[in-house]
Amino acid sequence: MIKSDFGLFGLGVMGKSLSRNLAQKGFKISLFNRHVSDVEVDVAKHFKEAHPELKTAEAFDDIEAFVASLASPKKIMLMVNAGKTIDIVIDSLLPFLSENDIIIDGGNSNYKRTKERFTYLQAKGIEFIGTGVSGGEEGALKGPSIMPSGTKDAYNNVAKYLETIAAKDKNNLPCCTYIGPEGSGQFIKMVHNGIEYVEMQLLAEVATILKHKGKNPEEIANTLDSFKITADSYLLEITSNILRKKEGDSWLVEKILDKAGNKGTGNWATIASAELGVPNTLIASALFARYISFYKDERVQLYNQFTKKSVSRLNVDDKDLLNAYQFARTINHYQGFKLIHEASKELNWNLNLSEIARIWTNGCIIRSSLMEDLVAVFKETNDVLTSATIANNIIGCKPAIKRVVSDCVLSDVPTPALSEALQFFNGITTQNSSANIIQAQRDYFGAHTYQRIDDASGKFHHTNWIS
Amino acid sequence: MIKSDFGLFGLGVMGKSLSRNLAQKGFKISLFNRHVSDVEVDVAKHFKEAHPELKTAEAFDDIEAFVASLASPKKIMLMVNAGKTIDIVIDSLLPFLSENDIIIDGGNSNYKRTKERFTYLQAKGIEFIGTGVSGGEEGALKGPSIMPSGTKDAYNNVAKYLETIAAKDKNNLPCCTYIGPEGSGQFIKMVHNGIEYVEMQLLAEVATILKHKGKNPEEIANTLDSFKITADSYLLEITSNILRKKEGDSWLVEKILDKAGNKGTGNWATIASAELGVPNTLIASALFARYISFYKDERVQLYNQFTKKSVSRLNVDDKDLLNAYQFARTINHYQGFKLIHEASKELNWNLNLSEIARIWTNGCIIRSSLMEDLVAVFKETNDVLTSATIANNIIGCKPAIKRVVSDCVLSDVPTPALSEALQFFNGITTQNSSANIIQAQRDYFGAHTYQRIDDASGKFHHTNWIS
Repeated sequence: MIKSDFGLFGLGVMGKSLSRNLAQKGFKISLFNRHVSDVEVDVAKHFKEAHPELKTAEAFDDIEAFVASLASPKKIMLMVNAGKTIDIVIDSLLPFLSENDIIIDGGNSNYKRTKERFTYLQAKGIEFIGTGVSGGEEGALKGPSIMPSGTKDAYNNVAKYLETIAAKDKNNLPCCTYIGPEGSGQFIKMVHNGIEYVEMQLLAEVATILKHKGKNPEEIANTLDSFKITADSYLLEITSNILRKKEGDSWLVEKILDKAGNKGTGNWATIASAELGVPNTLIASALFARYISFYKDERVQLYNQFTKKSVSRLNVDDKDLLNAYQFARTINHYQGFKLIHEASKELNWNLNLSEIARIWTNGCIIRSSLMEDLVAVFKETNDVLTSATIANNIIGCKPAIKRVVSDCVLSDVPTPALSEALQFFNGITTQNSSANIIQAQRDYFGAHTYQRIDDASGKFHHTNWIS
Repeated sequence: MIKSDFGLFGLGVMGKSLSRNLAQKGFKISLFNRHVSDVEVDVAKHFKEAHPELKTAEAFDDIEAFVASLASPKKIMLMVNAGKTIDIVIDSLLPFLSENDIIIDGGNSNYKRTKERFTYLQAKGIEFIGTGVSGGEEGALKGPSIMPSGTKDAYNNVAKYLETIAAKDKNNLPCCTYIGPEGSGQFIKMVHNGIEYVEMQLLAEVATILKHKGKNPEEIANTLDSFKITADSYLLEITSNILRKKEGDSWLVEKILDKAGNKGTGNWATIASAELGVPNTLIASALFARYISFYKDERVQLYNQFTKKSVSRLNVDDKDLLNAYQFARTINHYQGFKLIHEASKELNWNLNLSEIARIWTNGCIIRSSLMEDLVAVFKETNDVLTSATIANNIIGCKPAIKRVVSDCVLSDVPTPALSEALQFFNGITTQNSSANIIQAQRDYFGAHTYQRIDDASGKFHHTNWIS
């Protein structure tokens, strides 16, 4: 029997798509899915038989046989639920692995856990690659964006497979590149998802504003489509498609319960911001907007209690709305890449922001014309706002977002992320902030001391404020 | 030698104040401070000799002798740096402790670590009380607010000491009560500090607005003093004092560098919100405002790049500003107590919000007339906004905060916390939010499924959006 090039462990939505993608590219693969007790058929065999491109693939529900079918060094990609399952799977594979074999975790694992698993496996001579994979079911099949991290040697051993199945950028280069040391791939995937949360929230806010202007979903979609000239993105496109979707005579979106779920990466991105001291205010805002949505019963109760008058229609025009949206998206990308850059400095990852932007120009959920622009921006600077092009856009869009946010404030229309984007910009461009008062308060009640503007030594001073 | 009632381990700012407080109340105490190698004198002895009330106190720099000086069950309160030091100190005490002896951690420890330490010590038969202590140096001396958690038995053994040294509320009851199981005391202290961060940030924003109206620090202090009739609080008072403080002909506050430090509790509160799924947006906002302040060099650079025109003076009047401030403070307290309440449900702590508000009416940093009102509110309901009194205030203040926030938005004055308070209120009182769009997006690209408003079963649905 000819050994397989690559093993896929776990045939959920993403595992299935990646398997078919690999097989379509001509790689001989082995498939594993655990035996599901309440299903008669063997999941892997059943899946193989359903897809002609899997003719040469081998299907298993026995781990030892699965591993034995792979050529050395064995390359096994895990597409299983993040969390404890990963550790259980790793331990079930270990007895059958040899030195230099490679395990790839393609799930949304926490980057700290990825580092721990790397160390655990390194001690046993096994290579471990943690990789972000973005693109959803369709992207995984047709070409996802892939963000692998671990040792460079291990990457070189799997590059052929990952780069072949990845999406291609506009220069036909793969949307897959070696990111950096262990954990960095999962970290940037976490930030990718944080940026995604915010992009989704901003679109939801734009739609809310248009709804308050009296538009129906189809009309809102028309406005979003008109945004594509300057603000094209995958998420904009699908939101337009969503709004147009009908179910009989009704708009499907109006039948969907307004409680937004989350799978943890936006949560982790907020926590990473807090831990690393980076003010990623928009990720927190988008995360908390989902949390607020979850308190549906309380929202209905408070709505009734504070009986709202019907909201007066907004004055916001579509051009202002587009510019406000672009302003907020720019701040979102500034914050996301800032978090990556600060983590890279803190953890000595030496990440290349331009390459990260490049592999996010196709295949992934946050691909957009703005991301294309950022590839070039990050060749010049690590700081989005110091780029002349970006700065000019920001300056041009600012009057619009001021009008939009103030109008929404006066009309009781919640726009937490649009509002916070403006607040953040005003904060980060403030030369002398009110933090001197905070420092004085801390010194007053807790003797926490403060630095002085007239003492360049940076010495900490304390005042006896009461005397 | 007569044994001591109570031991104080660690004579930093807070440890010294608590020791003197205990001694002034007539308790015989033992003091310990480790031998500081570059200081000739014995810290504990030196401290004892400096204060007449410590005449009967015993001073040690030897752990065994310190522990031996205490009556059984021994009660030792640690006032050392949070973190690893606590574990080192606990392990250094253990050889000299017997069953039922009690260690009290009075520092700002992470509540999760407190739970771990409780379990570790429980296995050795030692009681562990984690307690929040608020009030700063002065509060610790004259009467702090104390928030102890652990077993009820252990609390009963130390109640006499803690309740005697605590501040007294307006009914002369101690601002100290048994909070709940292990970790809950440190949790509520963390939230206390989160509320404190927001109260400080709101005062800094109010001062910023008044500064933009052209007022000098003394004039700002005068306005703050005029707020005391309806919005009195310790933090308001000290902010007024701070603004009046002069250094020669200059206002001292204007000499203080605008980079706000933090000691971790605001960070933890933000993380706890993210982890528990509670949208504590204001704590995040206040934390991130401090983080933004820390990027001083970048702020100056961006200020110069986006060369601001001199800001037009704001129209905001003092009455609107007071009402906006009160609105935001109410949302801050709503969010803080909500976080406590949700944690209590999640972790089965069975916390009493009214009692918590009561012990925060004196001694602690966030004591205020609003906190006095909340003692009664929480006897009626766990939800601040459903209280008729509070709801009426909110309704009365909302027009003002709308005017203030929109005016600041149009005038480029950053007010992240005031703004977010309004955004949050609009979000939590929205009957039908835009989260339906988020759910549709998630289902579109990730097959994450959604619930429907016309399917009360709560079943999860999936749509093939592309067809």
